[in-house]
Amino acid sequence: MNVPHSFSIHARDGAARLGTLAFHRGAVRTPAFMPVGTAATVKAMFPETVRATGADIVLGNTYHLMLRPGAERVAELGGLHRFMNWPRPILTDSGGFQVMSLSSLRKLTEDGVIFRSHLDGSEHRLSPERSVEIQRLLGADITMQLDECVALPCADAEAERAMELSLRWAERSKRAFGSDSSRALFGIVQGGTVPALRLRSAAGLVDIGFDGYAVGGLAVGEPQAVMLETLDVTVPALPADRPRYLMGVGTPEDILLSVMRGIDMFDCVMPTRAGRHGQAYTRRGRINLRNARHADDPRPLDEESDCPAARDYSRAYLHHLIKAGEMLGAMLLTWANVHYYQQLMDGIRAAIAAGRLADHAEAIRRAWAAGDIPPRG
Amino acid sequence: MNVPHSFSIHARDGAARLGTLAFHRGAVRTPAFMPVGTAATVKAMFPETVRATGADIVLGNTYHLMLRPGAERVAELGGLHRFMNWPRPILTDSGGFQVMSLSSLRKLTEDGVIFRSHLDGSEHRLSPERSVEIQRLLGADITMQLDECVALPCADAEAERAMELSLRWAERSKRAFGSDSSRALFGIVQGGTVPALRLRSAAGLVDIGFDGYAVGGLAVGEPQAVMLETLDVTVPALPADRPRYLMGVGTPEDILLSVMRGIDMFDCVMPTRAGRHGQAYTRRGRINLRNARHADDPRPLDEESDCPAARDYSRAYLHHLIKAGEMLGAMLLTWANVHYYQQLMDGIRAAIAAGRLADHAEAIRRAWAAGDIPPRG
Repeated sequence: MNVPHSFSIHARDGAARLGTLAFHRGAVRTPAFMPVGTAATVKAMFPETVRATGADIVLGNTYHLMLRPGAERVAELGGLHRFMNWPRPILTDSGGFQVMSLSSLRKLTEDGVIFRSHLDGSEHRLSPERSVEIQRLLGADITMQLDECVALPCADAEAERAMELSLRWAERSKRAFGSDSSRALFGIVQGGTVPALRLRSAAGLVDIGFDGYAVGGLAVGEPQAVMLETLDVTVPALPADRPRYLMGVGTPEDILLSVMRGIDMFDCVMPTRAGRHGQAYTRRGRINLRNARHADDPRPLDEESDCPAARDYSRAYLHHLIKAGEMLGAMLLTWANVHYYQQLMDGIRAAIAAGRLADHAEAIRRAWAAGDIPPRG
Repeated sequence: MNVPHSFSIHARDGAARLGTLAFHRGAVRTPAFMPVGTAATVKAMFPETVRATGADIVLGNTYHLMLRPGAERVAELGGLHRFMNWPRPILTDSGGFQVMSLSSLRKLTEDGVIFRSHLDGSEHRLSPERSVEIQRLLGADITMQLDECVALPCADAEAERAMELSLRWAERSKRAFGSDSSRALFGIVQGGTVPALRLRSAAGLVDIGFDGYAVGGLAVGEPQAVMLETLDVTVPALPADRPRYLMGVGTPEDILLSVMRGIDMFDCVMPTRAGRHGQAYTRRGRINLRNARHADDPRPLDEESDCPAARDYSRAYLHHLIKAGEMLGAMLLTWANVHYYQQLMDGIRAAIAAGRLADHAEAIRRAWAAGDIPPRG
């Protein structure tokens, strides 16, 4: 189990990179999209199906798992991989983001945060050291440092305070993580939308030295253009030989445009959440299966897809399942969406390898813009 | 598509029969358990998974499907098999039972029933002829006659009135069904728990002549012994060369004891409904995964099962999923339950073939009685 992890870059196309992030549990082809498995399950999917879509890695949420079933319990049971029957790499977040967004936050101090569980009101503590410990108990292949993520827009002084705190927590995380080359520790760039703060954050993290670098604090309500501008400032300040992870992003277009700015890894609840709400992501854009236009449509979501969920069931049937509140509706759409995201990444990787990412991106965006097939009639 | 259906009996063991009910869409090995696909889906299961458990046939509900998405719409879309992506045989019920139990029943007359939908209060009509028509629109391989099913216990006079009405509706159903040997029409024996009424009902149906005979009006609240006594009276009055279907039954033990009385087909929501409520059926009986005793248990539901859901996930994980309200919990337990029911039928069929059903039944019942594996520790 002490095979060191590694990151290698096979090709470049503009700022975009084609690479492999290798762990003893398996290789992650980058650019990679990581389906979100919040509570030790990618919602409404069997792990075998997640894998069959082409996912090399999934994400687990420290905040949720520390509260239920508990990190010590998961460790007792052999770790998160065995617990959720996912033998491949797992990235765990630090818990920080969800403490801020889900719990009743009691107190943020230099040491860490004390908060109440959104489940039962019980009091918990999270520090950089405890977050690293929890992630080790879960058995994460990629551990994220604890950071403070502020909502946008925010005052520059507030962004600066949170960024500086996150840097100090980065240092403590690194120390707590120790030396275990079989697993990776990622630092997180903060600094809101202030270029100077982002640069200071990146430089500070590089000084500490991480196995990978995440860009945090984006996709929290700001316009896409602001997000992309922040990437334009931040990414060049990150080491070229380390993976770069844009946290919580995003729409297929967000991902495409961020890859073109040098991002290697993504995670987002969009494909899974949308699937539970009757929405499908396809190469023709986002489709609302609740819409009555689909009620009599015998055509599948996408007759050219190689995903059974997108190919073998009529829109009329999907519409029916959603209207009837049948679980199978969420199961099929989630599957189709995660598959679409993985196909998107697959196409992006092939395009980088061929040195034609710009053309590929243009073609994808044209198809999205053209929209769904016309109603029958 | 005009290959006639057929029923052949390969072996007998006491009153139990091993047979095949063959349709152009596939063969149904009997004794058979039919998973219930109420609204054109076996809840929380992909059709491929239903098939993989060993199911040869599923049931669809006329009442639900006529209200949503509508029988004419399903026909337009190519029929229920294509709609729900289940290419094998389907039995549809007549809608009568659910009109009585789910709708606000407006009026029962000689002609049929007028009722209000439980979904939107809209008014609908169901007659023997319309029920047969709906089932034809759906494309059912086995059509059930419309009948009136009374709740037990009930007065003898009431049971008699409903039985006589059901007989007249049986005759009208037969006439409406016409001659289509590729599909089967089943009559339904009624008569409550009154032996004389059951015998009159059976004789009347045999006079009309059906492709198969169902025993209705049981498993509606009466003790198991009463159900079995009614079978003891009714089954011998049914033609030996036709399949016999005990509607809405039941627990694994109900099924086992009914097979031993000559029943060939069953349907029940128990395995699917239980799966959505944290309950598992296993060879060691019914297990409640919500129970805290499973929270730290790394053992699977049944380490000897060849069902991935029962074999590859710990009880601790299943417990966690159920507590967290995760869809995957229902998906895995429903799968495990339907698989268990199919394994039960498989074992029963093998035992009949070998002429050792009594011994097999004794062994199964001993294992159920012995109960679940002891808690750890």
